[in-house]
Amino acid sequence: MTQQINQETLGVEQWHSLAQQLRVDSIRSSSGAGSGHPTSSMSAADLLAVLMSKYLRYDFDKPENPNNDHLIFSKGHASPLLYSVYKAAGAISDDELLTFREFHSRLQGHPTPQIPWVDVATGSLGQGLPIGVGVALAGKYLDKLPYRVWVLCGDSEMAEGSMWEAFQHAAFYKLDNLTAILDMNRLGQTRETMDGWHGDHYAARAEAFGWHAIQIDGHNPEEIDQAYAEAQDQTDKPTVIIAQTKKGRGVSFLEDVDGMHGKPVAGDEVQAALDELGSSDDLLVEVRKPDPGSGENFSAGLTGELILPTWEVGDEEATRGAYGLALKALGGAREDVVALDGEVSNSTKSEEFAQEYPDRYFEMFIAEQQMVSAAVGMSVRHRVPFASSFAAFLSRAYDFIRMAAISRANIRLSGSHAGVSIGEDGPSQMALEDIAMMRAVHGSTVLQPCDANQTARLVAEMADTDGIVFLRTLRPKTPVIYDPSEEFPIGGSKTIRSSDEDAVTIVASGITVPEATKAADELQKSDVAVRLIDAYSIKPIDSDALREASQATGGKVIAVEDHWPEGGLGEAVLSALSEESDILHFEHLAVENMPGSGKSEELLDAAGIDASHIAAAVHKLLNA
Amino acid sequence: MTQQINQETLGVEQWHSLAQQLRVDSIRSSSGAGSGHPTSSMSAADLLAVLMSKYLRYDFDKPENPNNDHLIFSKGHASPLLYSVYKAAGAISDDELLTFREFHSRLQGHPTPQIPWVDVATGSLGQGLPIGVGVALAGKYLDKLPYRVWVLCGDSEMAEGSMWEAFQHAAFYKLDNLTAILDMNRLGQTRETMDGWHGDHYAARAEAFGWHAIQIDGHNPEEIDQAYAEAQDQTDKPTVIIAQTKKGRGVSFLEDVDGMHGKPVAGDEVQAALDELGSSDDLLVEVRKPDPGSGENFSAGLTGELILPTWEVGDEEATRGAYGLALKALGGAREDVVALDGEVSNSTKSEEFAQEYPDRYFEMFIAEQQMVSAAVGMSVRHRVPFASSFAAFLSRAYDFIRMAAISRANIRLSGSHAGVSIGEDGPSQMALEDIAMMRAVHGSTVLQPCDANQTARLVAEMADTDGIVFLRTLRPKTPVIYDPSEEFPIGGSKTIRSSDEDAVTIVASGITVPEATKAADELQKSDVAVRLIDAYSIKPIDSDALREASQATGGKVIAVEDHWPEGGLGEAVLSALSEESDILHFEHLAVENMPGSGKSEELLDAAGIDASHIAAAVHKLLNA
Repeated sequence: MTQQINQETLGVEQWHSLAQQLRVDSIRSSSGAGSGHPTSSMSAADLLAVLMSKYLRYDFDKPENPNNDHLIFSKGHASPLLYSVYKAAGAISDDELLTFREFHSRLQGHPTPQIPWVDVATGSLGQGLPIGVGVALAGKYLDKLPYRVWVLCGDSEMAEGSMWEAFQHAAFYKLDNLTAILDMNRLGQTRETMDGWHGDHYAARAEAFGWHAIQIDGHNPEEIDQAYAEAQDQTDKPTVIIAQTKKGRGVSFLEDVDGMHGKPVAGDEVQAALDELGSSDDLLVEVRKPDPGSGENFSAGLTGELILPTWEVGDEEATRGAYGLALKALGGAREDVVALDGEVSNSTKSEEFAQEYPDRYFEMFIAEQQMVSAAVGMSVRHRVPFASSFAAFLSRAYDFIRMAAISRANIRLSGSHAGVSIGEDGPSQMALEDIAMMRAVHGSTVLQPCDANQTARLVAEMADTDGIVFLRTLRPKTPVIYDPSEEFPIGGSKTIRSSDEDAVTIVASGITVPEATKAADELQKSDVAVRLIDAYSIKPIDSDALREASQATGGKVIAVEDHWPEGGLGEAVLSALSEESDILHFEHLAVENMPGSGKSEELLDAAGIDASHIAAAVHKLLNA
Repeated sequence: MTQQINQETLGVEQWHSLAQQLRVDSIRSSSGAGSGHPTSSMSAADLLAVLMSKYLRYDFDKPENPNNDHLIFSKGHASPLLYSVYKAAGAISDDELLTFREFHSRLQGHPTPQIPWVDVATGSLGQGLPIGVGVALAGKYLDKLPYRVWVLCGDSEMAEGSMWEAFQHAAFYKLDNLTAILDMNRLGQTRETMDGWHGDHYAARAEAFGWHAIQIDGHNPEEIDQAYAEAQDQTDKPTVIIAQTKKGRGVSFLEDVDGMHGKPVAGDEVQAALDELGSSDDLLVEVRKPDPGSGENFSAGLTGELILPTWEVGDEEATRGAYGLALKALGGAREDVVALDGEVSNSTKSEEFAQEYPDRYFEMFIAEQQMVSAAVGMSVRHRVPFASSFAAFLSRAYDFIRMAAISRANIRLSGSHAGVSIGEDGPSQMALEDIAMMRAVHGSTVLQPCDANQTARLVAEMADTDGIVFLRTLRPKTPVIYDPSEEFPIGGSKTIRSSDEDAVTIVASGITVPEATKAADELQKSDVAVRLIDAYSIKPIDSDALREASQATGGKVIAVEDHWPEGGLGEAVLSALSEESDILHFEHLAVENMPGSGKSEELLDAAGIDASHIAAAVHKLLNA
């Protein structure tokens, strides 16, 4: 018999019954699947029962309602609990609940936005809270809407540094619309956490980072109720509710038992567990919809004329400089564009945007994980975030970028100071793996301009490109070779040198374009004609142009890049050429040895990727 | 005139003079280079003056002295200060100091172990302290030697979550041999830090994480002296000295001035700055050598007989299971082998080692950045660390792995649960970018076994392989196909199927080996012979075998992998084949679409990388 829970009938008894149902359903779904995390779900059932029935404001019929609260399971493995909440809210049927973890079911092992009420994918621990910070930043500073962000956190994930980045940034930005619910069930996957049930440890840390902390018994609905009320009443501070709980709560042979992580209940124990929890009615919760409010979803696109900066052919400018100015121009033309930086905005040049549009610029300090997470959170709220740092330091956030792709997030990343061309700072600051890293992200776009006008055009296109879009910029100035009127579609390329006599194709990108140009000009003097392709779009790469060039030059192709040999431009070119069978005479110039400090020219020479080495490679291919 | 500072002449006046000299030299070297970070060096000069002259125990003639303290500049951009310390210690000449940032100088923009007194490369912020935790773990629990670990930290890098992983782990492991020196100079690269000069914020956080915290005036030598003494006297707790300082201290036009980060003093201002600091004598510090002690460097290698686990052909075992048992066997034969895990040891199976050798197992909880850093720190102390987690979660530590290569660290990483074959857990747990990520690490080795005996052999070889060595293991069981007596040299491959009639070469690795074997057997029934290569060594890859096979099969090659198409096995094969010119008819089977949950077989099928798809690709190539 279905029984409706609503505000009038709310009370300890209903909360207990609802929590038991969430536990029952967590066991049923995971036992049916034969895998999953029922015990990690059961510990937080009381917390969710009170939240969904009294505090959460959510219109399940309109997940895009801008006034909806945001509920993020940072402990994504508690997905059985989340899906049981959806069932109790009437959003999914019991039949669907039991498709948990089946092929083609949207109820995957860990939540993903295939489910309309899930904002972001979780399952890599320590990501839900920093993303929640991003959503809360959007709520407080961009949307300026009263929705709240509720993040269910596990205690094991408190060991991830990213959680403390989130704590620090949330306090700095006074995110009183953010509540972290810490399900302190003491037990990790293989053992007790470092802090066990010492809620005072977590409270002291949270307070030291500037949060309001509340310690409660996480199985006492009245204490839970009181804590949520207190969290809502906070101003200028985020709140963490540290809830002491027991993993497997409610079933004697599961409760606080080590070694039960990620194990479904099986066999006769299923019925025994359900018997202990009590056969419940089919409780249905009337989750409160948000007040109609004035919120609208942001769908800006162009709101003004886009006047990109331009440079004259023959000028010199760093692509990072062009990025900064183009981003500022974009900010003027599109209100949905926001920028974030890892406290290097005078290097990445996102400072141009920051100075012009301080209300849409978010300083993320030296915390690249939080920076990317905040961008993901803002993309949940329909903003077009550009997050910038040194390309080398984006490697700090690789797990977050990987997960952002699973989240179907639309974020733009700008990585400056690519390759050995940066010079004196040395290898710690040189991105030499970033193209490999970013290519191997599902659905990503990887761009590397070589001049300022090209950069500006690509920045404008990035705003219209879905998925994870990466722009690789350079520290040194490069000559402006393209007219401001030229267009650079994503997936395209530019053939810079071409004739009927071309003997070899050179594929370059970024800093190697001017080097290859010098080589081509030098070779021309000895009557060697080469075709030179600027592969500014590394993913997707312009396979047609590459294959056509290869055919025109008898399969003689050189790829030259300021990157390790693996996973970069060279292998992208090989993959493109291998799509059709052909003879291939391939030379790959890349950074083979660990660079040190030195002048840009010295390092390009030492790496064997400057004009003279390119010319030598041409001769080698011709003599082969 | 050279003047010797030693214990007898020590005092406030000498400390001040020494600090001024360190500032002068920081300015001279960076002004000469035309780049670098003098102001970030000047803020910490007093801290280093007192440390090097009274507390540091270091034999600069014998950097490998096991009793030496360890001095790590987590704020690596303060390299001018570090090099000035080396000069003041008599370790380098003034002439060499002035080679700062020159091509081929070992005094690079950021410190690297090209310098014998530098343990690890720094320059990506937030890494020195977690690595220091690793060295301190080795000191307290492995070497059991009284050396101390001193880590100079910047306040900007306190925004990196990895610093708080270090704080938490150092306290958990009671690292009283570790002192963090926080140079709280207030100013980051572009602005004030989140906490400015609020030393109380840092102190409260450190204490909440279990550290002893001391707040001092970082320009007062007596307070600094007192703080170091107090840090040394701590038992069971690490200490952080929170030193309030001024960036650019000592020069009126640099001191506490925003906008001077990373800018050398230039032109007339150089002499003006030196004048303000006072022309100092050439002070030389007699850095105290460590007590002779009983310490010896660990150089174990085989200390017992290595009896690897074996399986019979036809058995079934997961490669992760074989990894665990082989690691345990290795632990019995080599005392230098230690293991770390990100609290998933019952998934990665490093629990086998943990249970047998608990004294050499370090639980790093869910903190992959700290896990890799600790491994790097232990490799500094000549241990052979194996760090394990899900391969997907190693992406969390990519920046640390990248830097470990610059550190010339020797670490072994085991990443389990690779690819869609894991099944129901879904994409957040599936490593599909790990091969791309690990290949694009300088000097790395990337291995993927397909059966248990092969895994065991490779684990043994990993211990003898320098650099960053990555083993990719599988969740599901796979059939044992190799005899225990077979050997699998790194850089080699195994040709599993071969005949004179081979029409197509199939290159597989890991889970796709059994799939390709099934396909080959099926094709054989219709008289299609294929050559099947097990590329267990993905980097270095067996180029000779691949080219020979390609030539034998008319350039018809299929690569099949449980990984995104970019940067993985397929592109490694293409790179190898492209080393020599040839006709190529290439088919690449990889995971193209975002997977969900499901059974392993369902997901391999959906990704188009199972036996039936491999067979289809063979037919496609034959009919091309």
